[in-house]
Amino acid sequence: MVTQYNIDLASYPRGFHLITDQILSRVDLSGIAAGLLNVFIKHTSASLTINENADPTVRSDFESHFNASVPENASYYQHTHEGPDDMPAHLKASTLGSSVTIPITNGRLNLGTWQGIYLGEHRDHGGNRKLVVTVYS
Amino acid sequence: MVTQYNIDLASYPRGFHLITDQILSRVDLSGIAAGLLNVFIKHTSASLTINENADPTVRSDFESHFNASVPENASYYQHTHEGPDDMPAHLKASTLGSSVTIPITNGRLNLGTWQGIYLGEHRDHGGNRKLVVTVYS
Amino acid sequence: MVTQYNIDLASYPRGFHLITDQILSRVDLSGIAAGLLNVFIKHTSASLTINENADPTVRSDFESHFNASVPENASYYQHTHEGPDDMPAHLKASTLGSSVTIPITNGRLNLGTWQGIYLGEHRDHGGNRKLVVTVYS
Repeated sequence: MVTQYNIDLASYPRGFHLITDQILSRVDLSGIAAGLLNVFIKHTSASLTINENADPTVRSDFESHFNASVPENASYYQHTHEGPDDMPAHLKASTLGSSVTIPITNGRLNLGTWQGIYLGEHRDHGGNRKLVVTVYS
Repeated sequence: MVTQYNIDLASYPRGFHLITDQILSRVDLSGIAAGLLNVFIKHTSASLTINENADPTVRSDFESHFNASVPENASYYQHTHEGPDDMPAHLKASTLGSSVTIPITNGRLNLGTWQGIYLGEHRDHGGNRKLVVTVYS
Repeated sequence: MVTQYNIDLASYPRGFHLITDQILSRVDLSGIAAGLLNVFIKHTSASLTINENADPTVRSDFESHFNASVPENASYYQHTHEGPDDMPAHLKASTLGSSVTIPITNGRLNLGTWQGIYLGEHRDHGGNRKLVVTVYS
């Protein structure tokens, strides 16, 4: 059985943000003994990844690290007409990925204790972001 | 329902290449109300990722960025006998990933307007590449 | 049909390790004409990726590369109280990913000849690691 949900995220500031609860509030996993949940982001300058759901400095260190490793204004960029944050946003999106796939067990996401779903918003003014959640059971 | 397709890609030059249309020309998504499409590449020196399908300088900037961040001839490489492009190709493949998973909705890939599927060819002479496409519905 | 397996990995030293055989020894793919296998790791400081299953220097070069590109003790880290290996471990985990999805064809993983599943153990003393394997057919 396949069920799909469209989720429109409000505009987030540039950086990494926990969105696990937003996703869980929109999907119905009850009665699913075993399955998979795929979250897909329909954008090329924002990403999804899984990491620590507790200390917020992990998320700010993510922003610092990816800003350092994917610099703005690199001398070799040709795709510069949408601003200095644009090409790095594309590169960060592919480095981190456009989707996450998570097991469902006994009606719940089978995440580790410390795992949450991050939105990586890589643009300065990314605006609303659209997710498609697909549940297999 | 599960359907699988083998796709043999012709040889591409080193760099990033849009392959969305090639994949769509080979799979039948008609009649699928909701599902997922997984594309898997059977190689360790090429990758799959999703990014902008419009301006080709995005793809050339991908090549420049990953060449800068995963350098050839790093002093610490031990796996050097297949040439200077080989170990970086392995590292790029794992940084970007071996597969992409995309929702299917109403008989079409539910990609964002600007999203396309990229082949990352990380070898100088990678030759033909084999994909396995799995469609769930 | 969905089948799930819990696999507890023994403690591995920091670095990259082939775990394909361990996974295959625990799952039953016989009789599956076409499907997908998803392996998910329930931790935020270890990762899963697919790369070369032959020369072990590929795996040691992975360790060298990610240590160079995700340094310990970066001046901008705020999340430092769990030790110098902790924040880099989170960043490596998200760069490489928390899960791999692999096609199943005719009762076998449809990997390329040179592909294997790597555990990326990014902590100095990561301890046991829990995997969830979900098989769709």
